[in-house]
Amino acid sequence: MWSYEPPLRAMRFVIDEVLAAPADWPQLPAHADMDADTAAAVIEEAGKFARDVLAPINGSADLEGCRWTPDGKVATPAGYRDAWRAYVDAGWPALGCAAEDGGQGLPLLLDTVLNEMLAASNHAWTMYPGLLHGAYGCLRAHASPALRERWLPGIVSGETLATMCLTEPQAGSDLGQVRTRAEPQPDGSLRITGGKIFISGGEHDLTENIVHLVLCRLPDAPAGSKGLSLALVPKILDDGSRNALRCDGIEKKMGIKGSATCVMSFEGATGWLIGEPGRGLNAMFVMMNSARLHVAMQGLGHLEAATQNALRYAHERLQSKARPAPANGLAASMTTAPRGNAAGADPIALHAPVRRILSRLQALVEGQRVLAYATAQWLDRAEQHPDAAERDRALGHVELMTPLLKAMLTGNGFLGASDALQVWGGYGYVHEYGIEQTLRDSRIAMIYEGTNEIQALDLVQRKILGDEGRRLGALLDEFAREAVACRDASERCEQGAVGAPALREFATALEDAIAGFRAGAAELATAAQADPGWPAAVAGDALHAFGLVALAWAWARSARAAARHPGDGWYAQRIVVAGHGRDWLLPELNLRLELLRSCGRELPWLVA
Amino acid sequence: MWSYEPPLRAMRFVIDEVLAAPADWPQLPAHADMDADTAAAVIEEAGKFARDVLAPINGSADLEGCRWTPDGKVATPAGYRDAWRAYVDAGWPALGCAAEDGGQGLPLLLDTVLNEMLAASNHAWTMYPGLLHGAYGCLRAHASPALRERWLPGIVSGETLATMCLTEPQAGSDLGQVRTRAEPQPDGSLRITGGKIFISGGEHDLTENIVHLVLCRLPDAPAGSKGLSLALVPKILDDGSRNALRCDGIEKKMGIKGSATCVMSFEGATGWLIGEPGRGLNAMFVMMNSARLHVAMQGLGHLEAATQNALRYAHERLQSKARPAPANGLAASMTTAPRGNAAGADPIALHAPVRRILSRLQALVEGQRVLAYATAQWLDRAEQHPDAAERDRALGHVELMTPLLKAMLTGNGFLGASDALQVWGGYGYVHEYGIEQTLRDSRIAMIYEGTNEIQALDLVQRKILGDEGRRLGALLDEFAREAVACRDASERCEQGAVGAPALREFATALEDAIAGFRAGAAELATAAQADPGWPAAVAGDALHAFGLVALAWAWARSARAAARHPGDGWYAQRIVVAGHGRDWLLPELNLRLELLRSCGRELPWLVA
Repeated sequence: MWSYEPPLRAMRFVIDEVLAAPADWPQLPAHADMDADTAAAVIEEAGKFARDVLAPINGSADLEGCRWTPDGKVATPAGYRDAWRAYVDAGWPALGCAAEDGGQGLPLLLDTVLNEMLAASNHAWTMYPGLLHGAYGCLRAHASPALRERWLPGIVSGETLATMCLTEPQAGSDLGQVRTRAEPQPDGSLRITGGKIFISGGEHDLTENIVHLVLCRLPDAPAGSKGLSLALVPKILDDGSRNALRCDGIEKKMGIKGSATCVMSFEGATGWLIGEPGRGLNAMFVMMNSARLHVAMQGLGHLEAATQNALRYAHERLQSKARPAPANGLAASMTTAPRGNAAGADPIALHAPVRRILSRLQALVEGQRVLAYATAQWLDRAEQHPDAAERDRALGHVELMTPLLKAMLTGNGFLGASDALQVWGGYGYVHEYGIEQTLRDSRIAMIYEGTNEIQALDLVQRKILGDEGRRLGALLDEFAREAVACRDASERCEQGAVGAPALREFATALEDAIAGFRAGAAELATAAQADPGWPAAVAGDALHAFGLVALAWAWARSARAAARHPGDGWYAQRIVVAGHGRDWLLPELNLRLELLRSCGRELPWLVA
Repeated sequence: MWSYEPPLRAMRFVIDEVLAAPADWPQLPAHADMDADTAAAVIEEAGKFARDVLAPINGSADLEGCRWTPDGKVATPAGYRDAWRAYVDAGWPALGCAAEDGGQGLPLLLDTVLNEMLAASNHAWTMYPGLLHGAYGCLRAHASPALRERWLPGIVSGETLATMCLTEPQAGSDLGQVRTRAEPQPDGSLRITGGKIFISGGEHDLTENIVHLVLCRLPDAPAGSKGLSLALVPKILDDGSRNALRCDGIEKKMGIKGSATCVMSFEGATGWLIGEPGRGLNAMFVMMNSARLHVAMQGLGHLEAATQNALRYAHERLQSKARPAPANGLAASMTTAPRGNAAGADPIALHAPVRRILSRLQALVEGQRVLAYATAQWLDRAEQHPDAAERDRALGHVELMTPLLKAMLTGNGFLGASDALQVWGGYGYVHEYGIEQTLRDSRIAMIYEGTNEIQALDLVQRKILGDEGRRLGALLDEFAREAVACRDASERCEQGAVGAPALREFATALEDAIAGFRAGAAELATAAQADPGWPAAVAGDALHAFGLVALAWAWARSARAAARHPGDGWYAQRIVVAGHGRDWLLPELNLRLELLRSCGRELPWLVA
């Protein structure tokens, strides 16, 4: 049956060996106390929580969902409250919060690893604390001292949970259409009136109070997104009375059924302005990079869970004699291959189509993990590095990588879960094997926090074309250094060592990918002069292409780190997996570049 | 909200104009009475049934599911029984059955069109009659006269529904592992004992009796698939008593929740042999081509429903001002474009990423419909044509197209539903908009009736390499004739007519695709000599590549038929849509061919 085993060894490999993140920490004053062993201990503890507390209630919560109690409250599924209590008691909500706010001040990289494990083991539960860090960052940067003093400690400790109230029926991707009104009161507070939808954790029974951050419009505010302000609106006021807001309904969703997605009504509720009038989006966007990275980790978590469960099942399930396997690759590992049964059936892990699925998933998991952790590492540098130039360089990387990771990792989380589902055959379609829930749960991450189409537009229009390729050039230069490093390492390898030719292949593939994408991006900029609408038409292809270049970098980097351990089977498999990505997945780059370059192709507009 | 409008005009365009199927019927003695008007009337009536009876209970049945009544029976969702009664009263079960059996003897092409509409409007309900035609074909070809006389009339009339009891817990894709026992009795009957799983409609309340076709093993039968026999086992015996079989459980599935997927126990149940001992698979495989085509139509139906609903929603939903659109294509149709609202928001149908999604879906719907109906047309010829050579030629086409359509149309049904879901944003994830149900329902078709991976192996190993490319060559020759026809038609077009250059582009693209695939298939055959496992490793790529070649043929054929109506907007849009497929989707062919040819690439075997 479905389970989740935190991939601690793979995570530490990326953190310590591929990215050498512990070498960063002494340079970042806020994390100067952190070291590799402490980080490993944190991750191990988080892994235990995910595996032992969250994973066991993942399937049951999906069946149970959220429900209304007879007295009109929203009850979360069995086990959710206890899990939340355990999470708070262990101090997890404070992990990424600054020490001066009562937090543990750990690097965002570790918060990112934590998020991967939480989402992998129980995405729905993770929705409740999912906005904590965002609300923390928003209040910390923009709220008045009085609001910060009143609300930050409870958010850091986990005593109070937070929501983001953005969407309205007519205002989804287009937040400029938000209509919720905020009327200033003589005492300096606001009266908030309006309806919000898709509010995760708008009502629940995990904490007594809930703090809503509500996007709203002050009187005489201009139309559009420049007229939006942000208000803090608690469920319970400090005098103990209920504020004038309520949950009007819980959505019936495809997945993450344990998460209460609420329709909220604010009927003259009391709130307070966060930040400047008309700067509501600005106040929220302070945490956009980390929030999008957080959603990306949901995609990676689902892919990891789907892959490890499919891999295990494929070794247990016996069906049909395996046909002759491709000569390459299998021969070396056949000595440890599991055996078939007396009826002549082999484990399906030996069948070529299943091996294709598992190899692809594993290559994506490992490559994407490098990209996600690297981005978190850059985010830590962007926020904490003492050198302004280094902060700026790191922020440029983060700004490019964030929309890519949000779209690519969530897309591959869903598609990977679907590919994995095939491994179970008919069993994959029934609830008890878990993978169909992974498929349903993972689907939402392609939509919220900006649809993946919007991520592609952000990447292409704002991040690549918006600064005439400055940030892109810097990141591709960074990628190109890895190709040089691979070539150097391959020359240092002993003659005939397994790793040497492989590393040369990684270097070549990466160089070709970078050159291809540089040319493609330049042509895209030229095409945009002739046809300003063209970049939007091929934004998705550009994102896919950029993702493949980034993966080529990740696979090369992973292989080079693994090649330092010749003769070790676990490390050797990292090189094989990265090589699969290079040989079988990277070829899609040329297709995407071809589409990118075909400016002038007709894009129909269809009548309904 | 979600609805289903049968695309009658598009269907008639394919049947009458693209495929000129009515010209076939006079040549097929069984269908000599059929003509275009009669066919149109049948399709129109079926469309009304799908739209007015089945579509309205699609969403409610998903929420309700099947349930156990207090007296231990399986109840289908509200409306299912009435719909079944209406279906029987209208004579639909008999549509494809031979006149001598009380059927209407209509071409399988029309049965295929019917199946598309049923699946599009209510896949779960369609599961109950889904095996009727298969059971009919199996009994007709293999059952004894006594069994045929007893059971065929009820199956043809719809009085009795049928199941296929194949899968057992240890025997899924590998039916050779079936263990259910059949013991001959002195009166010539069999005693059937064993457990079956995933039995669609194993128990329900639509008909009083249910006939189970059970794959089982006679005493002393050899191990493996050659030891399998097929038995007919009714739920109720002719003396009115309950047979010794029961439903032990209903699976909790991801989708098609209105369909009761049953765990069945046979405990010494009375049955009768169908066909020869040990020839059970043979008796079932008589209907495999039509059953797989039937499943393919579920994929096409879902894609059609997803596309038409997304297209409508994209014209209603207003979000953000549309960025400048690509210069080409849009300009011509902008005159009829819907307008935005006062707040500066345009219909999302005008946004380039949404247009990419809708154009891709529409190109797939239209191209795949041509392929599916063409295959049904070939199936009619294979079964009914008086000329043996023509039957053989048509059967060769069917044998190649069947695994392709089953895999490609179901894969695109699911992936297309997911692409469409993005159009709704967050609304797509909640039940009431219908698309998330389409996504869940469509997923099963990639698994049952042979997983899509098994279809790819069948296509490559048996159908392409199995006869040294004879059938493939004949079908590609057929495809190549369309390129010639396009070129001829473009030359006949008046100078400067819109269609002429377009048809030349279709001809060139099709010729290139055919040449590329011929070369790829030849290299695959060579590679198989060096590495017998290679074809299985790239079977999925080969299937994708073959599918793109077939689509290139379908788009060319569709465009050529539409080009006969210059100046007509509806027909002009067919050319635009086909052109989108040619320019934006066909380029994937080169990627697939590249993977196909890369024999020697490592395919990892991963440890669990």
